[in-house]
Amino acid sequence: MKIVLDAMGGDNAPSEIVAGAVQAARQLNLTVILVGKEAVIKAELAKHNTAGLDLPVVNAADAIPMDEHDPAATARAMQKTSSMGVGMKLVKDGEADAFITMGSTGGALATAQFVLGRVPGIKRSPLGAVFPTKVAASKGVFVTDIGANVEVQPFWLVQFATMGAIYMERVFGVQNPRVGILSNGEEEGKGSELVRQTYPLLKASGLNFIGNVEGKDITAGVCDVAVTDGFTGNVLLKTAEGVQDLIQTTLREALTSSFIAKIGALLVKDTLRKSLARLDYSESGAAPLLGINGLAFVGHGRSKAKAVVSAIRTAAEAVRQDVLGAVREAGQRLTKDDDAA
Amino acid sequence: MKIVLDAMGGDNAPSEIVAGAVQAARQLNLTVILVGKEAVIKAELAKHNTAGLDLPVVNAADAIPMDEHDPAATARAMQKTSSMGVGMKLVKDGEADAFITMGSTGGALATAQFVLGRVPGIKRSPLGAVFPTKVAASKGVFVTDIGANVEVQPFWLVQFATMGAIYMERVFGVQNPRVGILSNGEEEGKGSELVRQTYPLLKASGLNFIGNVEGKDITAGVCDVAVTDGFTGNVLLKTAEGVQDLIQTTLREALTSSFIAKIGALLVKDTLRKSLARLDYSESGAAPLLGINGLAFVGHGRSKAKAVVSAIRTAAEAVRQDVLGAVREAGQRLTKDDDAA
Repeated sequence: MKIVLDAMGGDNAPSEIVAGAVQAARQLNLTVILVGKEAVIKAELAKHNTAGLDLPVVNAADAIPMDEHDPAATARAMQKTSSMGVGMKLVKDGEADAFITMGSTGGALATAQFVLGRVPGIKRSPLGAVFPTKVAASKGVFVTDIGANVEVQPFWLVQFATMGAIYMERVFGVQNPRVGILSNGEEEGKGSELVRQTYPLLKASGLNFIGNVEGKDITAGVCDVAVTDGFTGNVLLKTAEGVQDLIQTTLREALTSSFIAKIGALLVKDTLRKSLARLDYSESGAAPLLGINGLAFVGHGRSKAKAVVSAIRTAAEAVRQDVLGAVREAGQRLTKDDDAA
Repeated sequence: MKIVLDAMGGDNAPSEIVAGAVQAARQLNLTVILVGKEAVIKAELAKHNTAGLDLPVVNAADAIPMDEHDPAATARAMQKTSSMGVGMKLVKDGEADAFITMGSTGGALATAQFVLGRVPGIKRSPLGAVFPTKVAASKGVFVTDIGANVEVQPFWLVQFATMGAIYMERVFGVQNPRVGILSNGEEEGKGSELVRQTYPLLKASGLNFIGNVEGKDITAGVCDVAVTDGFTGNVLLKTAEGVQDLIQTTLREALTSSFIAKIGALLVKDTLRKSLARLDYSESGAAPLLGINGLAFVGHGRSKAKAVVSAIRTAAEAVRQDVLGAVREAGQRLTKDDDAA
């Protein structure tokens, strides 16, 4: 299996990205193609023992910056020269099975649209991420769309939910994933016009639709996939990040607030850090660009080598379980009379 | 000053409610009118030393249950007999200055619409709550609407923002409150159609409008008022509750996971509890029903005596600072050509 990795993407590129590639090539026994500025990548590779590992380098002259004001325009301008564009082209040409970047999500999504295009029949590509839950047995909840499509149509949400269910089933091994639609109340009939229009479509979709779910049902692990528009999903994502940050800041302050607290903190620090890290969905794995006609993933910008390995593991599982084939099949099956929509 | 308190509302009614009323009457030197089943309230009052305190009891035969499936219908049916309906009538008739319940929010809002009505010129009544932030100097962020109006119009949001700013200025002493509109990105032009239509209206409103804010900006204390529709606001509220619950569950598990952690937990427990309690916006004070033609507040269902006192303090400040007068003035000032809207 060949995974292309954007060596230039993310806050810790290229050093942590290349380090992660080396670890993944060894641990997962696969080829990791590093794409980016060749000289830079080779200098990084020289710092590692890569004997016996398959780590080809493909040159790309440009890199899409992390904090791009208009990532779509930059992605378009650089689609042939950026590390993202060159990397995705390898997937398109069948020279690699999946692409991963820790760079700009907007840049990756736009580049994917230009270079790989959408799966035939799929109307829009959503962003999604797996959120942690309280339930030990839960694999997490895939929330989609978390920001790509601000205004959506009911039928698109059915496609988003279907792709999310495919992802949770194939990559996380969740049998017959429970699908909910995010709303402001659990009862049928509650919700925005969009929710009320989408509800009957989801009910008739053949998915394991459990109805409306609320914000707190995500962390309660009530469903495996929660579908929503990209506006609401983005508010949910950013709110979750904000609350997590607020509580962690508060904890840090509390644990250094007195001598006694500092002593106690020494004893609980490691346990707390480990437990809270489990909640940081953004650090683990990578988010798939579903609906794109080629497997592509975006990991968190803060990713270090360990997170890069985890992202490569996720992508490899998606290749092995043929997520793309299932999405293509869904694109053919889920059609609508009004194809202009 | 006279505050009416619904003795029958909330998970801990009537005992904690009555206990809170007794404490408030003593500490804040005001009259607390207890409304509900007279015999029950009198039996509770008999458990306390009420000498010299002004705690009149007004009988109400019914109480709106907490987990009502259709609170609006129940509120309508019981508007003359419920403790909420009877209590709000006292405010309407000028026999009390403000009403507080720890009961059903939906029931309170519906009863308020029937009994007190809306302030002339105000199109809709939103729900709002003050969220905690990371910033020590911040008084919190008033997020509105958190669930009353699922589908809204741009002009309504301007009114919600204006009422939120009045509330933060008068009750929390925030000078010239910074108002943001919740969106999926900070740049102007980002957002749903509703956000993009509301943006110029807020810019021209005379409010201290700072533009778009994201979910994480709430906890970062970037603004003092964040306005949104009741659908998105409810998702934000429930997501924040869910993440907080998830982290607290995780903390509890971590702190009992080993002998060492348990010893450490003994030392940090009190500090942690105190710090985390500060984050629980739902336990402190009460949320105002803005736009209602009479001061009415809903506290959290879990409220105990201390939270009841805090709610009464908030309501008393709103009376003292004439929040209702300012909202009435806003209702006259904020008009729109299309009054059918």
